[in-house]
Amino acid sequence: MHPNEALFANEAFYLAFAEGDYLAMRALWSQREQVVCIHPGWSALIDRVAVLESWERILGNPDQPKVSFYAAQAVAVGAGVAVVCYEVLPGSVLTAMNLFIVEDGQPRVVHHQSGPCGSPPPLDAETARLDA
Amino acid sequence: MHPNEALFANEAFYLAFAEGDYLAMRALWSQREQVVCIHPGWSALIDRVAVLESWERILGNPDQPKVSFYAAQAVAVGAGVAVVCYEVLPGSVLTAMNLFIVEDGQPRVVHHQSGPCGSPPPLDAETARLDA
Repeated sequence: MHPNEALFANEAFYLAFAEGDYLAMRALWSQREQVVCIHPGWSALIDRVAVLESWERILGNPDQPKVSFYAAQAVAVGAGVAVVCYEVLPGSVLTAMNLFIVEDGQPRVVHHQSGPCGSPPPLDAETARLDA
Repeated sequence: MHPNEALFANEAFYLAFAEGDYLAMRALWSQREQVVCIHPGWSALIDRVAVLESWERILGNPDQPKVSFYAAQAVAVGAGVAVVCYEVLPGSVLTAMNLFIVEDGQPRVVHHQSGPCGSPPPLDAETARLDA
């Protein structure tokens, strides 16, 4: 997988997140590999059903703050591509890692984790994406 | 890689961490793959030199609190094995994910991330490891 494919898939991930689009989010997660998802402050979800239920709940919550991201970088890690980026929420920035593999010719998420970042890189127009 | 190999390597990781053994920690990280390390509260380090420097500083800090871990679970993710576990520090528990690949016949870390966990699984003697 070319790093840019992972970066595009990462954009799709945050677009689904920002728009509360559960079906788009579900389509992005691997269907055949085991998956891991660690939401900020949560314990780890390591089962596709539990992961998707969490996203359905989060994305269906009308009080869920809008998320955007910036400074995404793709890094080939093992047989996948890790995209590291910074999630912007009202009053906080999180460091996130999303790991993509290829499944059915498409990049699919097998792991997502984000947590508070006390020293995020500067937010500037050039690196900003998805100003939700 | 058998999941148990990743679990053993994960134990070695936290033993090096708890004992402040930088050389052991360095030996655990991949030498040829790109690596990513996201310490709690930090921005992402995505360069082997920067990752190892961070560990040298952390492990060389005499005030670094002792870490232990529990409830480790190994999950095959892409071509590697993700070990999810909970790091115990004085007054806090972190959810951690360590991703291992095989290099030179050994499990090696290509990614580490941990962040605060508000709802960790119960800590009991059976799952506890490395009571540092």
